[in-house]
Amino acid sequence: MTIFEKIVKGDIPAYKIAEDDDYLAFLDVFPIKKAHTLVIPKKATDYIFDLEDKDLVSLHLFAKRVAKAMEKAIDCKRIGVSVIGLEVPHVHIHLVPLDDIGDLDFSNPKLEFSDVEMKEIAQSISNYFI
Amino acid sequence: MTIFEKIVKGDIPAYKIAEDDDYLAFLDVFPIKKAHTLVIPKKATDYIFDLEDKDLVSLHLFAKRVAKAMEKAIDCKRIGVSVIGLEVPHVHIHLVPLDDIGDLDFSNPKLEFSDVEMKEIAQSISNYFI
Repeated sequence: MTIFEKIVKGDIPAYKIAEDDDYLAFLDVFPIKKAHTLVIPKKATDYIFDLEDKDLVSLHLFAKRVAKAMEKAIDCKRIGVSVIGLEVPHVHIHLVPLDDIGDLDFSNPKLEFSDVEMKEIAQSISNYFI
Repeated sequence: MTIFEKIVKGDIPAYKIAEDDDYLAFLDVFPIKKAHTLVIPKKATDYIFDLEDKDLVSLHLFAKRVAKAMEKAIDCKRIGVSVIGLEVPHVHIHLVPLDDIGDLDFSNPKLEFSDVEMKEIAQSISNYFI
């Protein structure tokens, strides 16, 4: 079972932002920017392009709603999107607030936020999720 | 007019891979990996999350078809996805063949291929596009 399936099951805690029956958004605990978010399908599939068209479409529409909430909650120019997928074999879209082209660079040093700060960030985005 | 609109109009040449009435895929001329591809809507919109749901959906489904062709043509583990959008104000999805997590890092040195090589790469992907 992947770490993301454990988060979906509730066996591992996460700073959740939004969820429905099929998708979940939560803060990346190794953020390259403040409010760096992951969007996943609850059902585990390793590779995004193995998703059926309808599932790929719903995932991206859910991610768009999360991105729209992030734009409202976080001071940034726009929300960047990245799918790498070689770390955890469970589809995940990175949504990262961008101010500069280099902000979506995963070799950037990971930022650290306190538990209280992470809860506040997740809640601030969640408040705008519609 | 953005450089991508000029490519769509044919005013600037591009190593085209696939196109239909609404979308175009072509090689990035500043590739971070061999076969690094851009997928754009022909109609210019600056920011991906400003696209209407139906347009966002069609763009991602077109990109999936391009990614599937890239997987067949290029030796790699999978195709990574990135949308930054701070360079050219015209929505573009980067599709990048990945062998390693660091391969989707835009601060990596740009690779250089000859005109003949770029044509061969574009053609090899195009051959698998369905």
